Amino acid sequence: MKKISVSDIRNLVKPNIRNLTAYNAKEIPCRVKLDANESPYGFDITDEILKAVKTNRYPDPEAKTLKKIIAKNLRLNTENILFGNGSDELIYYLITVFGGPVLYPVPTFSMYGLISRSLGEKRIAVPLDDEFDLNMEKILSVIKKNKPNLIFLSSPNNPTGNCFSSERILKIIAASKGLVIVDEAYQPFSSEKGFLPMLSDYKNLVILRTLSKVGFAGLRVGFLTADKEIISEVNKVRLPFNLNSISQAVAAESLKNTRTIKLYIGLIASERERLLNELWKIRGIKPYPSEANFILFRVKNSDKIYQKLLKKGILVRNMKGVIDSCLRVTIGTKNENDIFIRALKGVIQ
Amino acid sequence: MKKISVSDIRNLVKPNIRNLTAYNAKEIPCRVKLDANESPYGFDITDEILKAVKTNRYPDPEAKTLKKIIAKNLRLNTENILFGNGSDELIYYLITVFGGPVLYPVPTFSMYGLISRSLGEKRIAVPLDDEFDLNMEKILSVIKKNKPNLIFLSSPNNPTGNCFSSERILKIIAASKGLVIVDEAYQPFSSEKGFLPMLSDYKNLVILRTLSKVGFAGLRVGFLTADKEIISEVNKVRLPFNLNSISQAVAAESLKNTRTIKLYIGLIASERERLLNELWKIRGIKPYPSEANFILFRVKNSDKIYQKLLKKGILVRNMKGVIDSCLRVTIGTKNENDIFIRALKGVIQ
Repeated sequence: MKKISVSDIRNLVKPNIRNLTAYNAKEIPCRVKLDANESPYGFDITDEILKAVKTNRYPDPEAKTLKKIIAKNLRLNTENILFGNGSDELIYYLITVFGGPVLYPVPTFSMYGLISRSLGEKRIAVPLDDEFDLNMEKILSVIKKNKPNLIFLSSPNNPTGNCFSSERILKIIAASKGLVIVDEAYQPFSSEKGFLPMLSDYKNLVILRTLSKVGFAGLRVGFLTADKEIISEVNKVRLPFNLNSISQAVAAESLKNTRTIKLYIGLIASERERLLNELWKIRGIKPYPSEANFILFRVKNSDKIYQKLLKKGILVRNMKGVIDSCLRVTIGTKNENDIFIRALKGVIQ
Repeated sequence: MKKISVSDIRNLVKPNIRNLTAYNAKEIPCRVKLDANESPYGFDITDEILKAVKTNRYPDPEAKTLKKIIAKNLRLNTENILFGNGSDELIYYLITVFGGPVLYPVPTFSMYGLISRSLGEKRIAVPLDDEFDLNMEKILSVIKKNKPNLIFLSSPNNPTGNCFSSERILKIIAASKGLVIVDEAYQPFSSEKGFLPMLSDYKNLVILRTLSKVGFAGLRVGFLTADKEIISEVNKVRLPFNLNSISQAVAAESLKNTRTIKLYIGLIASERERLLNELWKIRGIKPYPSEANFILFRVKNSDKIYQKLLKKGILVRNMKGVIDSCLRVTIGTKNENDIFIRALKGVIQ
C-alpha cells in the first residue's frame, strides 16, 4: 500500500509555518528560578475549593462565577470580559478574528510576532526609541501607510520593564482605525494606573490582563476587556470550553479576597527597588528602572555571566538576540534575591 | 478626540468571521444532565496530588510526566504524543498548520467545520450513506478532485454512534496525500480496536484522543498521536503553556491506575445495551446501535419531546438541524437512565 513520506508531510504544511520554530520553553533545572517572571509566592489549593469541582463535567463555558468576581474587583461589567487559557490564547484569537497587519514595538513580548507568523499575518515591528519608549514618528507613519488592524503595546513592557508614555499610547489609539491592545500583564506591579479607566472612552481599546504574574501562572487564566462588540466578535472563534473547571474554581476562590495577592505584589515591588539599588552598586552592571516584576540589566560578557549563574543553580533570562549584552532577572523572595546578588557579585569579578 | 464606532469594529473583522456565530454552549439548568456525552462518574482530586502543584509556576510546557504515563498505557512513544487543551485545540492547530481544503462527513462533530470557518479554510462536507457509514464514491472523488489537506473522521462518530468501516477508513488513508485524522474520542466505549496499532504503518494517519468522555471533561486534556514529523510541525504553533499544571497533575495521578476508569467504561457500555433494549421497546422510538457513550434515536415531534423532557428536568441533545427528528441521549448512571426511560415513556404517550 502506498505510504506518504516525510518530505510529503513537510510539503503539506502551509508556507508560513514551514520555517517557523516552536517557542522554546524547555525546562532548565535550577535551584533559584528567576527566568520566567513568575511570582515567588504560590497559593494553597484547598480541599473545599475542589469538592465543588466535578472532573467529569465540562467546565462552565462562560466562567460566570469567576467573571463576576473579576468584574467586581476591577469595576467592570461582566459583558466586557472574555477569558483565555492564558492571555496567549486571547492574542491568538484576536489575530484570528482581525488579522494583520499586526504592529508592535520591539523588543517586546515575543508571542505577538510568533502568533502572527503562525496565522500567516503580516507583521510590522517598530524599534523602541533610546529611552525604550514608543517611537511615535515611525509608528504614526506606519499607521498612516499600512493601516494595521491590530497594534500590541505591552505596558509595562517585557523585557524592558518600563511603562510607555500614556500620552503616546493615547495618541496611537486616536490615530488608529484598528484595535490597540494594551497588554497589562505587569500592570499590578506598576505605579501607574493603567488603561482600564479609559475603556469606555475608546471603542478600539482592548486591554489584556493575566493572573500569571501575580501567583497563578500554573492555572492559565488570562482575560481581555473591551467593548462588548469586540468581545462578541472574539467569542466567535473561542473554543467553548477553553477554561478548565479547576482553574475556574481556584481562581474564583483566590480572587474573592485580594488582600494576600496585594500584599505579595507590594513585597515584590519593594524587593524590586532594593534589588535595583544593589545592582546599581555593582561595577559593570547597568540596571534599567522597572515598573514590572523583573529587572533588565546590561553586563559585559552577558552570555558567560548567564552560564556562570546557571552553574551556581541560578536561572535568569539571557536576552541574547533580543537585546544583546542584557540579562533579565525576575524578582524573587528576599532570600532568592540575596542569593542572586551574592552570586552575581561572585561571577562578575 | 475621534472615536471608532461599532460599525467600524465589524468592518475590521476578517470576512470569514463576519457571519460566524459562536458555538452555543450555554448551560441549561436541569436535574439529569444527559446532553454532553460526559461520563456520569467523576474522580476525586486528592490533597496529595495538589500539594505538588505550585500555582505560581508555569506548567511543564511538555507535560512530561503525563506524557510518559499515557505512552506506557497505550504502548506509544512519548515523541508521538502532543497535548491540547482539549482535542478542540488540537483541531485548531492542525487546521492552522496544514490548512484546507478540510474534508469531513456529515453529520459529525461540529468543531471540524466551525474551526475551519474561523480560520478561513475551505470546507467540504460529504453526507454519510444510509447506514451512517462513509460514502466512498463521493469521498474518493473529492480526494481526487479537491486534494483535501485534512480529512476528519470521528469513529465512533458523533452524533450517529457507529464506527465507520475500518476497511473504508484504510482506503481513504491510502488514497489521500493529505492527513487523515481519526478522532477516537469515543473509542474507549467501542468493541473495535481503533487505529492506534496502525499508527506506524501510515505516515499520514493522525489519531485524536481525549480524556473528556471517560471522566475528565473538566480538565481539558486531549492528545494527538502521529508520526514525530507531524508532531513537530503542529508543535510549532502550539501555545507553550497550553496544558495547565493542575490538569496535568490530576490526569497523571488518575491514569497511573486505569482499573477504575476501565470499570466505569464497562458500566457505561453495559448500561448502553440495556438502554438500547429499553428504547426499542417503546413504540414510536427508533434507536440506532451505538459504539459510543450515547444513543441517537428517532422520534416523531422530537422538538416537543425534547421540551417535555426538559420540563421534567432531563436534558438531552436536540439534533434539530443536524439530523431532524432525532434526539441524542448520553448514557448516565443506572438511576439516571431509569429516570430518563420512565420520563420518555411518560411524554411519548
